[in-house]
Amino acid sequence: MEVGICKQDMLQKKKNAVLVDGVILNGPIMDSKAGEKFVEEACKIIMEEVIQKANDVTEKVCEWRAPETLKKILDLEMRDTGESHQKLLQLCQDVIQYSVKTSHPRFFNQLYAGIDYYSLVARFITEALNPSVYTYEVSPVFLLVEETVIKKMIEFIGWEEGDGIFNPGGSVSNMYAMNLARYKFCPEIKEKGLSSLPRLVLFTSEECHYSMKKAASFLGIGTENVYFIKTDERGKMIPEELEKQVQRARKEGSAPFLVCATAGTTVLGAFDPLDEIADICEKHGLWLHVDASWGGSALISRKHCRLLHGIHRADSVAWNPHKMLLAGIQCCALLVKDNSGLLKKCYSAKAAYLFQQDKFYDVSYDTGDKSIQCSRRPDAFKFWLMWKALGTTGLEERVNRALALARYLVEEIKKREGFQLLLEPEYANVCFWYIPPSLRKMEDGPEFWQKLHEVAPIIKERMMKKGSMMLGYQPHRGKVNFFRQVVISPQVSREDMDFLLDEIELLAKDL
Amino acid sequence: MEVGICKQDMLQKKKNAVLVDGVILNGPIMDSKAGEKFVEEACKIIMEEVIQKANDVTEKVCEWRAPETLKKILDLEMRDTGESHQKLLQLCQDVIQYSVKTSHPRFFNQLYAGIDYYSLVARFITEALNPSVYTYEVSPVFLLVEETVIKKMIEFIGWEEGDGIFNPGGSVSNMYAMNLARYKFCPEIKEKGLSSLPRLVLFTSEECHYSMKKAASFLGIGTENVYFIKTDERGKMIPEELEKQVQRARKEGSAPFLVCATAGTTVLGAFDPLDEIADICEKHGLWLHVDASWGGSALISRKHCRLLHGIHRADSVAWNPHKMLLAGIQCCALLVKDNSGLLKKCYSAKAAYLFQQDKFYDVSYDTGDKSIQCSRRPDAFKFWLMWKALGTTGLEERVNRALALARYLVEEIKKREGFQLLLEPEYANVCFWYIPPSLRKMEDGPEFWQKLHEVAPIIKERMMKKGSMMLGYQPHRGKVNFFRQVVISPQVSREDMDFLLDEIELLAKDL
Repeated sequence: MEVGICKQDMLQKKKNAVLVDGVILNGPIMDSKAGEKFVEEACKIIMEEVIQKANDVTEKVCEWRAPETLKKILDLEMRDTGESHQKLLQLCQDVIQYSVKTSHPRFFNQLYAGIDYYSLVARFITEALNPSVYTYEVSPVFLLVEETVIKKMIEFIGWEEGDGIFNPGGSVSNMYAMNLARYKFCPEIKEKGLSSLPRLVLFTSEECHYSMKKAASFLGIGTENVYFIKTDERGKMIPEELEKQVQRARKEGSAPFLVCATAGTTVLGAFDPLDEIADICEKHGLWLHVDASWGGSALISRKHCRLLHGIHRADSVAWNPHKMLLAGIQCCALLVKDNSGLLKKCYSAKAAYLFQQDKFYDVSYDTGDKSIQCSRRPDAFKFWLMWKALGTTGLEERVNRALALARYLVEEIKKREGFQLLLEPEYANVCFWYIPPSLRKMEDGPEFWQKLHEVAPIIKERMMKKGSMMLGYQPHRGKVNFFRQVVISPQVSREDMDFLLDEIELLAKDL
Repeated sequence: MEVGICKQDMLQKKKNAVLVDGVILNGPIMDSKAGEKFVEEACKIIMEEVIQKANDVTEKVCEWRAPETLKKILDLEMRDTGESHQKLLQLCQDVIQYSVKTSHPRFFNQLYAGIDYYSLVARFITEALNPSVYTYEVSPVFLLVEETVIKKMIEFIGWEEGDGIFNPGGSVSNMYAMNLARYKFCPEIKEKGLSSLPRLVLFTSEECHYSMKKAASFLGIGTENVYFIKTDERGKMIPEELEKQVQRARKEGSAPFLVCATAGTTVLGAFDPLDEIADICEKHGLWLHVDASWGGSALISRKHCRLLHGIHRADSVAWNPHKMLLAGIQCCALLVKDNSGLLKKCYSAKAAYLFQQDKFYDVSYDTGDKSIQCSRRPDAFKFWLMWKALGTTGLEERVNRALALARYLVEEIKKREGFQLLLEPEYANVCFWYIPPSLRKMEDGPEFWQKLHEVAPIIKERMMKKGSMMLGYQPHRGKVNFFRQVVISPQVSREDMDFLLDEIELLAKDL
């Protein structure tokens, strides 16, 4: 019997009970009043412990516990009988306490951060309504919203028309694009597969997201058939190198079909020169996909949209409003310039139980067959409500401010002893080393770099155990461990930038 | 400037302003108090309009509007300036009003329905915390929860050990499995791709989910290389036919690598004979994947788990607790018997910026590299909290009751004039025709079936325009349009079953 069930009601019902297989079928078995009360009490906890603390820098970013310790603290085991509401509310408290506060103004660890109240409300609505967006009959509002949002995003890309679909992640968007480019190159692959075909080859920069390799492997193309193009010192693809590699591929007898440029690389925040890459794609008849998962949001800013100059020449674009624009994980669109139904032709399976053609409404609104998914979440909706709330100007201000804060941080880094920039950033990724006092007078050489390599992990461990902030580090293309600071959240201020640098100095003063 | 910003505060701050690129960097730019108030007001609407009405059969399931009409009602356009909180709250009301109430006790349209208060709370927590599950450092709680839930699901499958990952949909789970089986068959494919390899062939039943075709196409295998195996009159794969097809494929010189059995087909709810299929897979050295997206939840019931007899012999299983168990869309696990790291070997790309090996904790908890996604939602968490709340017994009761209600409906259908069962169901899919008065005396023949084919769409249109219930129909494998009733929600009672039949009679009395 379910927790919270009202026994007296049940006894009453038993009098007129219809029993099948020993189960009483009269009336519902859930006590909805108790359930609603539980939701109300939990919402109070969420409001107090997460939402109201989101901006509070005196709170910890994380309450670090090692895996084995945390397992002991949380009562993870699922048992035969359920727990009381009181116990469950305590569990909710614990889950919140030991989770990382990604909305904290000093969470700089990933390409998402902060809290947007409007997107959050949209997500609560989504969860309460529990829709799946494949047919108009079950998701009328959400399908219209998705159509509207896609149209608007297409305007910002600069296409006159287009198509698109929201999907669970930039990695998946990139897969969609790769498959679409392949379909365009040779539609028969959908039915025949790749065996007995020449080797398909695609091109992307050395600095691209790792999802390119995942996609090539998943789609049966193979990671060796991803040709990585050299980048310049700022992490941008070198067009001449692309041209060379395309020619090399042709000489080898393989079949080039796709170039994936990146607008905002993951580590350095670099933007590939789209216009020059588009020239090469045009010349060779290659599909141009732009992975703007991270950098796409700069399109909203009249000041910074030049970073993506030439994007209107792309055939497809991946753009994740859940990153710089705070729409909430996940909110990712794949946008396609083609408007002749390529997306649907490539992806459709025409399931008769879902996409009946004899429905009483215009079934062109049943867009689910463009997807590799069946159930799909209405991720466009949270972006839409946020956009309605802030207006384009409000979104633009977010981008401008994040980039201004990044610029401020760069200037501060230049002023401070012991901090060294990796490169002048174009975007919100600020990459730098912290050279602790003991290394400052060391000679440049392998030993220096080896020692410096060990610094960032120690500082990271200390900041996490203290809970004061979170900041990512990584080695990258021959460079030893450095910090990557990402500025996103509108809750972040200049004071947090100063704090970040002060805190690194404080944590590393004995190193 | 963002909506709700407090101008006086801003003026004060301007006095000590740090300006970069014309942007004031002091203090956050959001008015968090106004934001919190907006969330509170919206939550009140969600509670009153969605959650408290979930059980109310006097409410409409849907408030049908044609696409063009609904576009006019909703103010969809995003503008340069934001809207007031009052306007936004009205928009939220409208979104809710015109959305389908999938938690309504008379929503029988899909393989999900109903509301679970515990899962809902977990989903609100997730949205507020906005995590991504790839590394322990950013998602400590959610990764431990996922590990626990996967272990528990594996117990119910009957494996001694195993591995798994939650992902966005049963379709994606099936793709994971297909790629994993392919990797096991020939690990080189990850790097080399499929070109120059023999034609890979997989087997699944005629009644399988359409995601099999989507997966074969997406993975570069090709839909023609999916060999569909004949089913018996109940929709179950015929093992002898599978044996024949495997032999045929071998004779053709192609490379069979995978059998996908289905436990709970989408339309008929049929369960393939897993034990006999496993024998064939063993004999031929083929990977056995079981798509138990829909039927997997029967494993929780001691009474009904026999439907999946033999599932412990599978190499991988897809199981969606968001369907029969109400964990909320999406909650889908791919479970793998292998515990030697196959999942990770197959999927890893070893991104150095995310999966650093010099972290200060045990990085085997960073499970994100098992995924095709980068950002990933903590979908295991909602299932976990629900399981904690109800206990295994509570989950079991849900399954037993849904199947008892389906059984009740079947018996009622048999009693009523004009209703005709397609077949005796094994599970919660009750498929039937309604033969309206005018057709009851017609002779069996093409004309009768053609006329009957047109009945279900008319009834569907009428029920949606009235908003009284929602029920799916489809043609299927030579059979004309019939209704598919799916019983899931614990809010549903015997009275709703009676209503369903009465309502069809009422809606179709003039047909």
